[in-house]
Amino acid sequence: MAPSLHDDPIDDSISAAAPPLPQMPPIKVTIVGSGNWGSVAAKLIASNTLKLSSFHDEVRMWVFEETLPTGEKLTEVINNTNENVKYLPGIKLGKNVVADPDIENAVRDATMLVFVTPHQFMEGICKRLMGKIRSDAEAISLIKGMEVKRDGPCMISSLISEHLGISCCVLMGANIANEIALEQFSEATVGYRKNKEIADKWVKLFHTSYFMVSCVQDVEGVELCGTLKNDSWMGWRWGTTQRFISGSKLIILCLYQAAIMRIGLREMKAFSKLLFPSVKDTTFFESCGVADLITTCLGGRNRRCAEAFAKNGGKRSFDELEAEMLQGQKLQGVSTAKEVHEVLSHRGWLENFPLFSTVHEICCGRLPPTAIVVFSELAPDQSRGESRI
Amino acid sequence: MAPSLHDDPIDDSISAAAPPLPQMPPIKVTIVGSGNWGSVAAKLIASNTLKLSSFHDEVRMWVFEETLPTGEKLTEVINNTNENVKYLPGIKLGKNVVADPDIENAVRDATMLVFVTPHQFMEGICKRLMGKIRSDAEAISLIKGMEVKRDGPCMISSLISEHLGISCCVLMGANIANEIALEQFSEATVGYRKNKEIADKWVKLFHTSYFMVSCVQDVEGVELCGTLKNDSWMGWRWGTTQRFISGSKLIILCLYQAAIMRIGLREMKAFSKLLFPSVKDTTFFESCGVADLITTCLGGRNRRCAEAFAKNGGKRSFDELEAEMLQGQKLQGVSTAKEVHEVLSHRGWLENFPLFSTVHEICCGRLPPTAIVVFSELAPDQSRGESRI
Repeated sequence: MAPSLHDDPIDDSISAAAPPLPQMPPIKVTIVGSGNWGSVAAKLIASNTLKLSSFHDEVRMWVFEETLPTGEKLTEVINNTNENVKYLPGIKLGKNVVADPDIENAVRDATMLVFVTPHQFMEGICKRLMGKIRSDAEAISLIKGMEVKRDGPCMISSLISEHLGISCCVLMGANIANEIALEQFSEATVGYRKNKEIADKWVKLFHTSYFMVSCVQDVEGVELCGTLKNDSWMGWRWGTTQRFISGSKLIILCLYQAAIMRIGLREMKAFSKLLFPSVKDTTFFESCGVADLITTCLGGRNRRCAEAFAKNGGKRSFDELEAEMLQGQKLQGVSTAKEVHEVLSHRGWLENFPLFSTVHEICCGRLPPTAIVVFSELAPDQSRGESRI
Repeated sequence: MAPSLHDDPIDDSISAAAPPLPQMPPIKVTIVGSGNWGSVAAKLIASNTLKLSSFHDEVRMWVFEETLPTGEKLTEVINNTNENVKYLPGIKLGKNVVADPDIENAVRDATMLVFVTPHQFMEGICKRLMGKIRSDAEAISLIKGMEVKRDGPCMISSLISEHLGISCCVLMGANIANEIALEQFSEATVGYRKNKEIADKWVKLFHTSYFMVSCVQDVEGVELCGTLKNDSWMGWRWGTTQRFISGSKLIILCLYQAAIMRIGLREMKAFSKLLFPSVKDTTFFESCGVADLITTCLGGRNRRCAEAFAKNGGKRSFDELEAEMLQGQKLQGVSTAKEVHEVLSHRGWLENFPLFSTVHEICCGRLPPTAIVVFSELAPDQSRGESRI
């Protein structure tokens, strides 16, 4: 028997037929951030708010104002053309996306806040928004990374919750933003803490026929998947780049590829569970876990930069290569590797994380990129029976 | 800090220094089976029995006797040349491998029995060996597949245990036999039921510097990983072959690749846990799980045959393509898909396993290979929030 068919994966018939009750005004959504991924999020959400009567059509997007080379303001161009010409050129966001250069104005009426900025700006933004948002607002973070402080790492979702006094879900997955913008198939996972109803609202807001969203009750697990996969990916890239260079056969490469992905996934899971014992094993089987890691390894956007690093034997620094190849962007895995290393080192866990440790040593120039291929060292537990982590 | 270095991943110093006590004669190992994978197992084991004083040097290998085109007996050629010229030509097995055409003689003195034959022969072999083996023997199965009977599926390890009255571990992993024979890096997982000491002995017997073996206390989980990955792999191959043919960009393909692997892994785990509630989630993070699946998808040996099936739109049967392309071998996933389908259908679980169900429909010619790419159907649970399985 073939699987049953579903014409429309989200059942919106009830909300479409019955208008919202007077005491439930349509939900207003604001996106805090308007880079590449933020603009794609705006497009996804704007297509859904138009269809779902429980949401206000308009999607407000806070844009860090810039003056373009033409002399025009970025917000004006977005509002006139429905296009973020700087960070997502060629893609119409939807006429109901309104770019707003005033962050306080942008968030004022929103009850659903989507945070999607570079992670180093979040603490400042949170401080600025304290007391400026509705008390019944809900947040979601699409931001990868964490803040490492003296008393331990702080996830971005916690930063938002603690500063703004609101609950915060996360959405992670294989966010190859330009491909999602072209409406190519992709997946993501929403992590929530307690309230499944709110998680379902986020799923509804993001899910489209080409962007498949599921949810799991595990905020930290989902968030750490998104954060740590970059660390695993760099190890994978260097491990397999060596093989590419040596011109080995494809089939041999596959065994290496699979083994490093597995070790990366194992360290991601072990690190997450040591930090947050509530993290569930099953989260790593979701889109945010194994699928995002495989996608990142096989097709990640910063591939060329990591490969160039390996081809130069680690002799040209990341700062140099990033400046040359990534037009001012940073290679996310490098800062993650440093943050993860700080935690591992501080807690005395380094020897249980040979892949993460080695990746950091390579990033710092203390080991060559070839260090990844030494498997008897990468998997010391394996050779002695059961894994310790 | 760099990870600590280990010159020799297996610590054999104690057994090398202290000869075995008189009451502990060296362990004798027999391999039941001498195909491609069986011959590689013989090579791995024979290199270890020479090094480890707790094992008898000689490794006996039961060979189903054949007369070669030259008129010689296969066992004689193996014993004269140390090479299985039919199933692993060009590779020296080790002088301490003795081919024996008499199965009862081969197993008589062995206390460690390695089963590695095509799975359809195992029931007959077990019946033949009843009462012919030592009562203190231990077994391990390297065989993928299961026997589906009226009262449910029977794993090969259970078949061995039940018929021979001995405990049986399993060893599964990315067994691209020809690559392991060339001493290229690979990994495997031993699954054991209760006795960790016996599992450690198996690890010692198989582990080499290029073949990394770990163990987990989960026989059924490890065995089902090995069995079910072929089902997932076929779905993956067809799903991604469509994309190859349509000439889409690499990065889009990666998202599909990762998504189908994830769904395959999810169904493998769900199926295993429904059949055997003792199966552990963590087993799927081992080499036998995620790594073997990725390896099989990226480099599996029967890739050409599955691709040819898709390119012909399913119009040429597997029987036809196998005969043409696999020199008499069968594409393992096809029979697994049928066995899995019988279980799912009998227990009313079909709708929770859209990938496995669709793969079987394609194998039977009731759906075209293109059926795999319809993602809203493949992942119906995803679109409605949390997975049911």
